[in-house]
Amino acid sequence: MSQKALALDIGGTKIYNTIVDENGNICGEIEKHSTPKTIDEFNILLKNIFSKYENDVDIIAIATAGAVNNENNKVISSTGNLPKGYNQINFQALSNKKVFLENDANAAAWAEHILGASKNCPYSIILTLGTGVGGGIILNNKLYKGKSGGAGEMHFKMYADKRRRCSCGSWDCFEAYASGTGLRKTAQEILNNQNITTYDVIEGVKNGDEKMQQVFTKWQDDILAGLIGLTNLFDPDCIVLSGSMAEFVDTNYLESSVNEEIVTTPIKVYRATAGNYSGMIGAALLAMSK
Amino acid sequence: MSQKALALDIGGTKIYNTIVDENGNICGEIEKHSTPKTIDEFNILLKNIFSKYENDVDIIAIATAGAVNNENNKVISSTGNLPKGYNQINFQALSNKKVFLENDANAAAWAEHILGASKNCPYSIILTLGTGVGGGIILNNKLYKGKSGGAGEMHFKMYADKRRRCSCGSWDCFEAYASGTGLRKTAQEILNNQNITTYDVIEGVKNGDEKMQQVFTKWQDDILAGLIGLTNLFDPDCIVLSGSMAEFVDTNYLESSVNEEIVTTPIKVYRATAGNYSGMIGAALLAMSK
Repeated sequence: MSQKALALDIGGTKIYNTIVDENGNICGEIEKHSTPKTIDEFNILLKNIFSKYENDVDIIAIATAGAVNNENNKVISSTGNLPKGYNQINFQALSNKKVFLENDANAAAWAEHILGASKNCPYSIILTLGTGVGGGIILNNKLYKGKSGGAGEMHFKMYADKRRRCSCGSWDCFEAYASGTGLRKTAQEILNNQNITTYDVIEGVKNGDEKMQQVFTKWQDDILAGLIGLTNLFDPDCIVLSGSMAEFVDTNYLESSVNEEIVTTPIKVYRATAGNYSGMIGAALLAMSK
Repeated sequence: MSQKALALDIGGTKIYNTIVDENGNICGEIEKHSTPKTIDEFNILLKNIFSKYENDVDIIAIATAGAVNNENNKVISSTGNLPKGYNQINFQALSNKKVFLENDANAAAWAEHILGASKNCPYSIILTLGTGVGGGIILNNKLYKGKSGGAGEMHFKMYADKRRRCSCGSWDCFEAYASGTGLRKTAQEILNNQNITTYDVIEGVKNGDEKMQQVFTKWQDDILAGLIGLTNLFDPDCIVLSGSMAEFVDTNYLESSVNEEIVTTPIKVYRATAGNYSGMIGAALLAMSK
């Protein structure tokens, strides 16, 4: 009989859950929750989701923000988008079924690699552009995790002179510029107005507002700057852009511009095709393949 | 009988050659040449070196600036530190012995991994800080090359707002800041004096000159910024600093500062121990292991 996983995607703003089969098909309802603000609320919510579905599945697969150590099934260091103490949560203690944990961008990268945009690419990098920025790296058809599971964190500097705090506590990381939050901050800086939202920029661009277009162009060129560095470091076949903010970027512009500036051989820039739930699908596929 | 390689290290300023045995021991004289300014002179120099030694060795191993494609034994894209057309040189055509080519930083990384500072580290990154900056990446005890051999090029941006041209033609790459050339440019910018040399800064620091110390600190903190990003991306066991400029940096400061700012687990920062000729040793070891 076909295996099934209860899959969760834990992000800085929302938590999703559903059921995924071993072919990567979603075969349950998609449930959506606001991300709790405290650890106590977090444990209660997870326990509720687990107990509702754990008897119907073979395994629980969680795609989460933050680097994951697969050895001890804990988050090494969560991002500032999740409540303090998140990395102390013992996910396995909340269910009798096996709980598998993977970084959300790693999970999404795996979904894109198995059934999405980077399906035929042995070397790919996925960037999930949402509240924060996640990164997943596939090298030689394998998920690259590094020495401790923390690889692929998109916290490399865009400026070396300390301009903008990142959610990680350091300064000027790619995440602090290329995320939806980054777009808002870029807008607030350029337009000197603390009330502007990410939504205002996106709507403004749609309506032909020149100032908002200028903000958007700066944001997209910051993403471009990051893609150039990643390409020169990893020499991948492709970079896949995923997440809620990825729908707004011009992948043709990014691809041609990256390829003009790199010292390695040309890459492709794709928009993700495994869907908004690729984190859950990838985590489920990884969990069921173990 | 033990194999031997004629080994060359082709850099932006100097070319070295010697003989290396299969254990990585140097067993010939070290010869040193100025890097030719034209391709014709380049071909003549290489031909002279090859014909002088090729009968005494099993293979010719070249560590070179620029990304190397091992499939066709050519430089994919040389840096601006080498004459235009360098990537058209057909090295194999200059000798009857097999000619093996590897990026100089990759070769140095391999030497450090086999017999140097990163000997017991499955995951390591080496940065060769010289006229330019080279990068070599060892992942899971293998040299990481990417899809086309171009991986590990340290051309990721330090600033996303186009301040300083890099030798690669793009802007504000790590190489343009962390190299010896980068130190000179940083000094010229901070002190607003175009006549200052890298040597002036190093001498000034030795003599307790406060302004030169300020310049040096900025240069070292730019290196630090790069190490933070590389650590978050690759999650390595260690980063090894090699090349002529590496002797001046404070590896203890860099290690403790990196580990304060990363989201992954702590790394070690080492100074290279395989010596100034690690490029030749690593290229020879790689060549003789094929």
